[in-house]
Amino acid sequence: MSKVMTQDVRTTVDAYFAMWNAGDAAARAEQIKKAWVANGRYVDPARDFEGHDALSKMVEAARAHYVGHTIRQSSGIDAHHDLIRFAWQVLAPDGGVHVTGIDIGVLADDGRLQRITGFIGDLPE
Amino acid sequence: MSKVMTQDVRTTVDAYFAMWNAGDAAARAEQIKKAWVANGRYVDPARDFEGHDALSKMVEAARAHYVGHTIRQSSGIDAHHDLIRFAWQVLAPDGGVHVTGIDIGVLADDGRLQRITGFIGDLPE
Repeated sequence: MSKVMTQDVRTTVDAYFAMWNAGDAAARAEQIKKAWVANGRYVDPARDFEGHDALSKMVEAARAHYVGHTIRQSSGIDAHHDLIRFAWQVLAPDGGVHVTGIDIGVLADDGRLQRITGFIGDLPE
Repeated sequence: MSKVMTQDVRTTVDAYFAMWNAGDAAARAEQIKKAWVANGRYVDPARDFEGHDALSKMVEAARAHYVGHTIRQSSGIDAHHDLIRFAWQVLAPDGGVHVTGIDIGVLADDGRLQRITGFIGDLPE
């Protein structure tokens, strides 16, 4: 067995956004495998899903609800220890910003996501 | 045995800030007990401490380094599931803002902090 190499955080986060934007189930599974460890868990105010299959179904449902929308990273990645944060925007089909938020990630030893915690919008006053 | 009641998040976060601002070790221990479960863990870019004694020493060291500084919450608390986020400011003795950041918290079943992850400053561009 060879030692698992730690994946660069940029590769992981790119795969994470590609997962959200993948309409094709096979392409999405590929990105999920690149982005997440097997028991990776995503939690935001409306969602709580764990594991590759559940994550794929989560994205499928979100894409069915927000037809034609895309999500993109809207800040750099701030990282320390095994922790990352970055901002994102969901764009409507006309390109307008539909919703914004931040994700906090915990990385596994191999550099893939163990956990994402999403928060919507700006901090309350 | 009586069932442990879940502490309100406001009480927990107030105790968390009171911990940082407590110069007296006994008063600090009181706030730490109110804010954190026994194996609570705090991680920011410069720190990683777990357990009540370690958290108290962490605060003692920070207060010795930033003499006369105080920290205050600078946003509301955004919460979903067992997760919270809020912003904070460290004020210099003259009242000027020395440093800002956000904390992401994971709450234990009893409403105290299991984990705080701190990030410094604004998100990178």
